Amino acid sequence: MRLKVLPVNIVGVGMTRFGVLESSIVELAQQAALEAISDAAAEGEVFDHVVVGTQNPDEFTGVGHLSTLLTDRLGLVPAGATRVETGPSSGSSAFETAFSLIASGMAETVLVIGVEKMSGVERGVASRILAKMMSYENETRYGATPAALGAMVARRYIHDYGLTRDELSLIPVKAHRNGAKNPLAHFQKELTVDRVNNGRIVADPLTLYDCCPTSDGAAALVLASEDVTRGLGVSDDAIGVLGVGHGTDYHAVQHRLSLTSFGATVEAARKAFEMAHLEPSDIDVSELHDAFSILELINMEDIGLVERGHAIDAVKEGRTDAQGDIPVNPSGGLKARGHPTGATGIAQIRDIVLQLRGTAPEDIQVASPEVGLTHNIGGFGNNMVVTILGNR
Amino acid sequence: MRLKVLPVNIVGVGMTRFGVLESSIVELAQQAALEAISDAAAEGEVFDHVVVGTQNPDEFTGVGHLSTLLTDRLGLVPAGATRVETGPSSGSSAFETAFSLIASGMAETVLVIGVEKMSGVERGVASRILAKMMSYENETRYGATPAALGAMVARRYIHDYGLTRDELSLIPVKAHRNGAKNPLAHFQKELTVDRVNNGRIVADPLTLYDCCPTSDGAAALVLASEDVTRGLGVSDDAIGVLGVGHGTDYHAVQHRLSLTSFGATVEAARKAFEMAHLEPSDIDVSELHDAFSILELINMEDIGLVERGHAIDAVKEGRTDAQGDIPVNPSGGLKARGHPTGATGIAQIRDIVLQLRGTAPEDIQVASPEVGLTHNIGGFGNNMVVTILGNR
Repeated sequence: MRLKVLPVNIVGVGMTRFGVLESSIVELAQQAALEAISDAAAEGEVFDHVVVGTQNPDEFTGVGHLSTLLTDRLGLVPAGATRVETGPSSGSSAFETAFSLIASGMAETVLVIGVEKMSGVERGVASRILAKMMSYENETRYGATPAALGAMVARRYIHDYGLTRDELSLIPVKAHRNGAKNPLAHFQKELTVDRVNNGRIVADPLTLYDCCPTSDGAAALVLASEDVTRGLGVSDDAIGVLGVGHGTDYHAVQHRLSLTSFGATVEAARKAFEMAHLEPSDIDVSELHDAFSILELINMEDIGLVERGHAIDAVKEGRTDAQGDIPVNPSGGLKARGHPTGATGIAQIRDIVLQLRGTAPEDIQVASPEVGLTHNIGGFGNNMVVTILGNR
Repeated sequence: MRLKVLPVNIVGVGMTRFGVLESSIVELAQQAALEAISDAAAEGEVFDHVVVGTQNPDEFTGVGHLSTLLTDRLGLVPAGATRVETGPSSGSSAFETAFSLIASGMAETVLVIGVEKMSGVERGVASRILAKMMSYENETRYGATPAALGAMVARRYIHDYGLTRDELSLIPVKAHRNGAKNPLAHFQKELTVDRVNNGRIVADPLTLYDCCPTSDGAAALVLASEDVTRGLGVSDDAIGVLGVGHGTDYHAVQHRLSLTSFGATVEAARKAFEMAHLEPSDIDVSELHDAFSILELINMEDIGLVERGHAIDAVKEGRTDAQGDIPVNPSGGLKARGHPTGATGIAQIRDIVLQLRGTAPEDIQVASPEVGLTHNIGGFGNNMVVTILGNR
């Protein structure tokens, strides 16, 4: 059945600096969108639709109805405009909706924006807003936080597979090493294993350096049908969307079959690989959702990039470095690039597009990748989207 | 290009009572969804995706991440799950996303839920939440409310076309006459022109009876590909989705070319009719977004059901009654059925499906309709979705 899907290409990308920024949510989204439209040489193009992925602008910023507002500000009226929200995977879910509009033949040119402005509220308020993505009945009302759940998962992984603190610290160290080479990353300085190990405890065993920051930022993509791609004159830079998969798992962690494998990732990856007619061994570069260091290991295993329980071996051998044979998060990932929640999925795709074009920053450019993958988590591990992108 | 869209059918519908209800947002959504799944005889079916249209559950109810939560509660894990939000047109926008997933070949069976629970917060709080769909810079900060904008539009329409107070009152009178026959409607008693005329002024010239209520409620649909439709054994009751159109207009009313015509409706209708290869004269029954009485007249004109400035003539001649030749809002519309914002678009589609099946309540069943239309407004007239449904 998936053979019927019409081809969809990414013809333009844009992204703001991630970090604690002065700009408003509208300004951030505009900046990324205008860059993507310019990158696609699509300034004169009629856009059929604008899809905005954002987790909770109403509560983080007080600005609502963002899909219409941005369509207006970008001069794209009367395009259809839709906001998509699935927690921190809102960006990738917006990408899926945009993809389906073109893959169905309903649209030919679609702008996708991922954006979040999280620094405008106090830390306690931000935590309260983010906690709404967890189960109130089973988690939040007992005081659980995303970091607490991450710590529980880490404990179990350590128990099952004998991971050490020094080993786990290699993940944020790699993230910061890559982020230091990424001019748009939230954090641009390197870390040491000692610094990670001795960081302030957020939720034992996770220290501050195991956890991604809350960030402001936006990223945007222009998606186009084959016909429009040919007409734009940027065909050489166009990247094909080979697969998109979306899966869920039980809302509360306590209802799941495993703490160290996310069923939603397994399902999303299965669907994406099925659509792409590819296998994990075909992936040359990945951007995975490492909101907590432990998640990078679990994600690698769930997607099938490495054998279950052996992700850390690949990390220790340097195989997941930008110059390794299964590079993971050359951008710095959520840990170093930052995590403006709704923007992350689109930023991941944007960074894979640069990799496939061969235009990523020099020190983090992977050697001639042909196929890349993104993986974005919604909720605490219950609403995942995987995309597979490739040269056409 | 739209010829490439794969066929999509509505094979099951469900809806709760609309009104001020005791049930939680999750319970409402579950009730409507289970009824739709049962109506489709799809209890044993694997659902590929769940799409939830809801405007602001986080602020109205404190419950977030609703697409995952409902997928879990309905036993539909590991289906993909997406929330879609475009203000009060969130339900229809969710329908569009669900449609595109099947029309592209990415999915075969999709559950769509529209839901809102608005009565749990105080009136002032609800107004503040709803006001986020308006332009802060141009409208909200000067004290404008949706009703104030509706009143401005009504004043201009009265000025341009000589509409009288008695004439405008015919709209809510018809809505309540129909709603009185609809067992799920928020309001089930009739009104008189005198009562409407002498109602408390909300925003001059609009009285209380020109304005829809804020309601709680949910509605749901099961959408299926041709293959799945055949397999379900409910083919005789399946309704085809012939067209879906989505359009925007400038965010703030003051930036638009006209006060008495909504460009976003014109665009959405144009796209929907183009996809359906139909014209306004082909429409046998409509559910239009009458959040304020004046909007029903404008919507009829923007969609092309009647000549510009002459909608009231059709109303006075009884042509828009359930037994007329261009029946509008036989359900009672937003005015009498009620307006739980995210649920409205799905309720409109559900009510048209009943009409096309010939199973609407007796006194509001239109005579043998073949093609029906829904029209759902997001923001104050800036994010519209039109659907066209028909017997297969």
